[in-house]
Amino acid sequence: MTTTDPHVDEPTAEELRALDELYAAFEAAHMTPLWTQIGGLMPTAPRPDSVPMLWRWSTLLPLAERAGALVPVGRGGERRAIALANPGLPGTAYATPTLWAAIQYLGPREEAPSHRHVQTAFRFVVEGEGVWTNVDGGDGRVDAIAMRRGDLLLTPGMHWHEHQNTTDHPMAWIDGLDIPLVRTLDAGFFELGPEELATRETPALSRNERLWAHPGLTPVGAPPPASRLASPLMAYRWEHTDRALAAQLALEDEGHPGVVEPGHAAVRFTNPATAGDCLSTMRCEMHRLRPGTATASVRTAGSAVWQVFSGSGRVSVGAEGWDVGTGDLFCVPSWAALRVETDGGLDAFRFSDDPVFEALGLARKETP
Amino acid sequence: MTTTDPHVDEPTAEELRALDELYAAFEAAHMTPLWTQIGGLMPTAPRPDSVPMLWRWSTLLPLAERAGALVPVGRGGERRAIALANPGLPGTAYATPTLWAAIQYLGPREEAPSHRHVQTAFRFVVEGEGVWTNVDGGDGRVDAIAMRRGDLLLTPGMHWHEHQNTTDHPMAWIDGLDIPLVRTLDAGFFELGPEELATRETPALSRNERLWAHPGLTPVGAPPPASRLASPLMAYRWEHTDRALAAQLALEDEGHPGVVEPGHAAVRFTNPATAGDCLSTMRCEMHRLRPGTATASVRTAGSAVWQVFSGSGRVSVGAEGWDVGTGDLFCVPSWAALRVETDGGLDAFRFSDDPVFEALGLARKETP
Amino acid sequence: MTTTDPHVDEPTAEELRALDELYAAFEAAHMTPLWTQIGGLMPTAPRPDSVPMLWRWSTLLPLAERAGALVPVGRGGERRAIALANPGLPGTAYATPTLWAAIQYLGPREEAPSHRHVQTAFRFVVEGEGVWTNVDGGDGRVDAIAMRRGDLLLTPGMHWHEHQNTTDHPMAWIDGLDIPLVRTLDAGFFELGPEELATRETPALSRNERLWAHPGLTPVGAPPPASRLASPLMAYRWEHTDRALAAQLALEDEGHPGVVEPGHAAVRFTNPATAGDCLSTMRCEMHRLRPGTATASVRTAGSAVWQVFSGSGRVSVGAEGWDVGTGDLFCVPSWAALRVETDGGLDAFRFSDDPVFEALGLARKETP
Amino acid sequence: MTTTDPHVDEPTAEELRALDELYAAFEAAHMTPLWTQIGGLMPTAPRPDSVPMLWRWSTLLPLAERAGALVPVGRGGERRAIALANPGLPGTAYATPTLWAAIQYLGPREEAPSHRHVQTAFRFVVEGEGVWTNVDGGDGRVDAIAMRRGDLLLTPGMHWHEHQNTTDHPMAWIDGLDIPLVRTLDAGFFELGPEELATRETPALSRNERLWAHPGLTPVGAPPPASRLASPLMAYRWEHTDRALAAQLALEDEGHPGVVEPGHAAVRFTNPATAGDCLSTMRCEMHRLRPGTATASVRTAGSAVWQVFSGSGRVSVGAEGWDVGTGDLFCVPSWAALRVETDGGLDAFRFSDDPVFEALGLARKETP
Repeated sequence: MTTTDPHVDEPTAEELRALDELYAAFEAAHMTPLWTQIGGLMPTAPRPDSVPMLWRWSTLLPLAERAGALVPVGRGGERRAIALANPGLPGTAYATPTLWAAIQYLGPREEAPSHRHVQTAFRFVVEGEGVWTNVDGGDGRVDAIAMRRGDLLLTPGMHWHEHQNTTDHPMAWIDGLDIPLVRTLDAGFFELGPEELATRETPALSRNERLWAHPGLTPVGAPPPASRLASPLMAYRWEHTDRALAAQLALEDEGHPGVVEPGHAAVRFTNPATAGDCLSTMRCEMHRLRPGTATASVRTAGSAVWQVFSGSGRVSVGAEGWDVGTGDLFCVPSWAALRVETDGGLDAFRFSDDPVFEALGLARKETP
Repeated sequence: MTTTDPHVDEPTAEELRALDELYAAFEAAHMTPLWTQIGGLMPTAPRPDSVPMLWRWSTLLPLAERAGALVPVGRGGERRAIALANPGLPGTAYATPTLWAAIQYLGPREEAPSHRHVQTAFRFVVEGEGVWTNVDGGDGRVDAIAMRRGDLLLTPGMHWHEHQNTTDHPMAWIDGLDIPLVRTLDAGFFELGPEELATRETPALSRNERLWAHPGLTPVGAPPPASRLASPLMAYRWEHTDRALAAQLALEDEGHPGVVEPGHAAVRFTNPATAGDCLSTMRCEMHRLRPGTATASVRTAGSAVWQVFSGSGRVSVGAEGWDVGTGDLFCVPSWAALRVETDGGLDAFRFSDDPVFEALGLARKETP
Repeated sequence: MTTTDPHVDEPTAEELRALDELYAAFEAAHMTPLWTQIGGLMPTAPRPDSVPMLWRWSTLLPLAERAGALVPVGRGGERRAIALANPGLPGTAYATPTLWAAIQYLGPREEAPSHRHVQTAFRFVVEGEGVWTNVDGGDGRVDAIAMRRGDLLLTPGMHWHEHQNTTDHPMAWIDGLDIPLVRTLDAGFFELGPEELATRETPALSRNERLWAHPGLTPVGAPPPASRLASPLMAYRWEHTDRALAAQLALEDEGHPGVVEPGHAAVRFTNPATAGDCLSTMRCEMHRLRPGTATASVRTAGSAVWQVFSGSGRVSVGAEGWDVGTGDLFCVPSWAALRVETDGGLDAFRFSDDPVFEALGLARKETP
Repeated sequence: MTTTDPHVDEPTAEELRALDELYAAFEAAHMTPLWTQIGGLMPTAPRPDSVPMLWRWSTLLPLAERAGALVPVGRGGERRAIALANPGLPGTAYATPTLWAAIQYLGPREEAPSHRHVQTAFRFVVEGEGVWTNVDGGDGRVDAIAMRRGDLLLTPGMHWHEHQNTTDHPMAWIDGLDIPLVRTLDAGFFELGPEELATRETPALSRNERLWAHPGLTPVGAPPPASRLASPLMAYRWEHTDRALAAQLALEDEGHPGVVEPGHAAVRFTNPATAGDCLSTMRCEMHRLRPGTATASVRTAGSAVWQVFSGSGRVSVGAEGWDVGTGDLFCVPSWAALRVETDGGLDAFRFSDDPVFEALGLARKETP
């Protein structure tokens, strides 16, 4: 503290020795003074350890394929998923302090066995098809959900789930989970299910979609969701997402509101039983930038991961900047300014910890 | 009170005179004793004045057509709407103590001028098309909404609205409002808008649908609704309703849950910004009975009005019963047992005051 | 409708006959046109049938005493309660379209037997003591609640309750219930309990108070309330109310916020488990005006009943005005402007249907 | 993964080399496979790094006094607070992954200058008095709050606050903040206020108490709280807490419900404007064990810190156990079983991250 006030007299040698003794006593007593740490503990604005980072699809996919050749899928490892590891969080496999993001790869006819966990999860498909994710419908009945390009598939917390590739070609997609948050909070529980798949059905539409994917329509007799935080709709199809984004830009062309900002359309994936976020701890959105669009620079308390779904553009996150194309993933640490621009147009998927920040009264946003 | 206890001695003539004086004094003081009224005021179960009642479409439509020939539409009368008047509520135009239901008729090229009111309203179309309802989007911008067979169109409270028939043929539909409830509560405000239509556009899809009628997708940049109780989605199309009902029955065929009871599918029209009822004071639902189905007999605290949308069947409400077909309307007073059966299948639209009962903690239901 | 548009040609005799036939056909078909009724059904602002009205305590109490001498209390009549009957609502016993208010009178050693009902109820004590209201704690256990001057005692919906006078003197108080609302909605259920009192205990503090009447403190192990709408605290003591009102005026004296308007303090009685209104359908408040205060004139959608608790003043409601003193009751119909002024200071209890209006999105207030 | 399945053939040297290359490629690409980490990332039940730990008041207080002699309070260090550092979280000053707990010490006539921060905070006083905490009332007006033995004082997020010791003796108390949680989430903002105290008033009761500390009474005209998550009541006095706990044990003596378990009373400090937790991210409770009581062993997802307020007993947390007395603090890591027993009776203050777990759907509890 004396260092912070130059008007105080220099401490004497005796005082310095007394201070040394005091700090040693603190350490022996498992105590740490605030005054030597406050800047790190309570910065004037978020000072994340995680850094802006880009992972290119052209790097990820070949490595996933290589893992497909060398590493079996099965009980114990559970999933052939390779996570984005933020260099600012060394020793972890975290994209940000709250978000885990990975490429998952399933070879021809491969299966990943059933398990369930407190961690909420989604899959987003940037290319390919042929895998079904079988998810507990919340009522103990397994629901087989097809995975196709552009689709978002949910696995709410503690819902059993397993994957099967029904084709002769491999498939890769991204997984998003709140693993870091749950790990930090010491909140996780995990259970193994049977080795055998619960179903080998491959319906085009899952039962949850057939009941819940109708706009503004609630099925009166549907089994109640497992909880307010578990969306009964677990598949959001590209066909609907694409149509909703196109409509926003068409409305803009006609002079009507609907877009986030000029040239920038966005939809949020929501739980139709509550209208809240589709997952309790992660927000999922799809953004579309019209050709020739640049977003405003925005910074947000909380972190996010983006994946380019189609098109290309230039992204800046804090002091970093990259040219990006289909499949590329990047993370946005808390309070880092984000700006996206595109010549030819760009669609991008975003997920973030916004629901956590909003639930705890921590949300904050500004356009610098 | 003496009448309720036979063991008490008969009152003397003097006592009777004193009682007479007391009751006269009550009356002069604008007071009424509970003990003479309690049975009527606080019955052991609801004892509605309104009665079960059927109105046949074959009666309503010709009378509406006749009114079309004789009575102009315009400022003052506002709408050529003829309400269902429950015989148990004489002197009123109420279908039930809370619900107003009417057939509205608009001749070729006719218009109904703009107004707004606290009362929430919907239109449901049992036949025909060609009319557009222009509704304030909640942000002061007018949104032209096409009306077609099977569609439900909303006018949340205090949203400006007007109608125009763009064709050379007439069109009729039903209006539902909470007029009786708002009148009883003395809660109503009403304002006239301009004589001239705000727009003559006739888009196939309204702007509110283009933004909000995508399953599980919330438009991030859409203008916020006027209030939590005002649905930003104001048109629910038959195409979606039909598909949702068909899916429930198909799931039943496959042995999965989803229907209300065997052979009985139902969807509720909901506000996609809250997942609550589409209107603050009225619940709207579409029901489908498979051929050969009979519902359980159910009674509910609160009242409802039904309209057969297609098919035919037999309905019993309390002690009444009718054969019903397309367009026929009937009301279900509070706590009257309702049962519907059909040989050939039947679709029916239902609206009720359930949201009021639920908000006030008054909801109750039983299968006798 | 022709009457509303002077520019339309006068109808011919034939047209008039055709119209007569149409209206006769409407009547035969149990139909009522909107255009002849719209002014009454949907006025531009609330046009209540109920009228501003004053009932003087000096009238009510002697009549209640007289009833005490002539009319027994017991099964059937249930309570010796005499209701305020609004002259604008003839044939009813309603103070307003939603609120029932009565003076209840219990003679020395008298008892009123147990019953329960959907209708929510409270007692407010303007003078006297010695009666205990035994109320179901929501967990089936009876809780004896002392009634003393200035106290507010609740009976949430479907809670068993009974009264006993343990003294040799009579006691009178006011009862408030939502009888008219529940009757209009056909929502009421009523059950008789045993003839014999469930308890004859006379504790100074009820168990619900001992658990719940601590500021900002929730009892972790208390039985959960019967529902979100049933307050677990059922007695609000004058000592606390008085202290809270005094504090607001003292803060005003010191230049700090807290009062509603200059010289006007007010507290609302709330459910400590939700912070919402103490009853699901009625708001209860106590107001204090400092000597020399006049409130602003305010009108509110929804109706209220007030009772002067102490002091005196002058009240105007719409076009009416009265000098009022302790015990006097008056009603405020919807949208009638209310103004209260006092020379010597005045405390008044208010109850209203505000929770209904807020739950249904109907609340509105203005200072003309 | 091969290690998890003994039935797979041993890899060849070539396969091992290929795997080595793959893992090196992962590392170069900032990627981490799930299958090598899943046990640590997603354990079957919480496996906290933090450990059960006891800090004795007899150690803390002398060190705080020594710091009082050697380290000035003032701008930069901000507060003479010395935090409990969990040995399982080396390099941090965290009691648990979400909670920061410290002893704060203010010498005679000392002051700690104004600042504000996103982190929510409270003070709890185990002994002494004479310090006032001046807190922003949420409306920009400073409210001086006395600190006395047994009191809980709040500083909701972003409320300016400062301390002054008005006496000639020192005072120490504990501070609780959500610093670790906010730091992990990168959610923190911090601002310095003026050097000079905003007020030197020393009222016995703060203004927030005078408005809000009345049981079941909401001040109608009080300024609205800064947010739903900011309690307008910021001081909970020992007098009320003690009375509430005593009432629960008295009710138990009389055979009525109210205690958490036999001999164990508890109150939760709640926001009177919402009935939710008093702070957005921390739950605060006071527990009282009757002499001769032992609690059930309970484990909870989420962590907590306890301070013995009076009496003595024996505590076991997971595999650890200690005899404890007044002022002693201990932490309970997530899912560690907690059991407390006492011969002579014991009062203890508890704070935890339960509100975070409940908001995010992560709460879980069991009695092993």
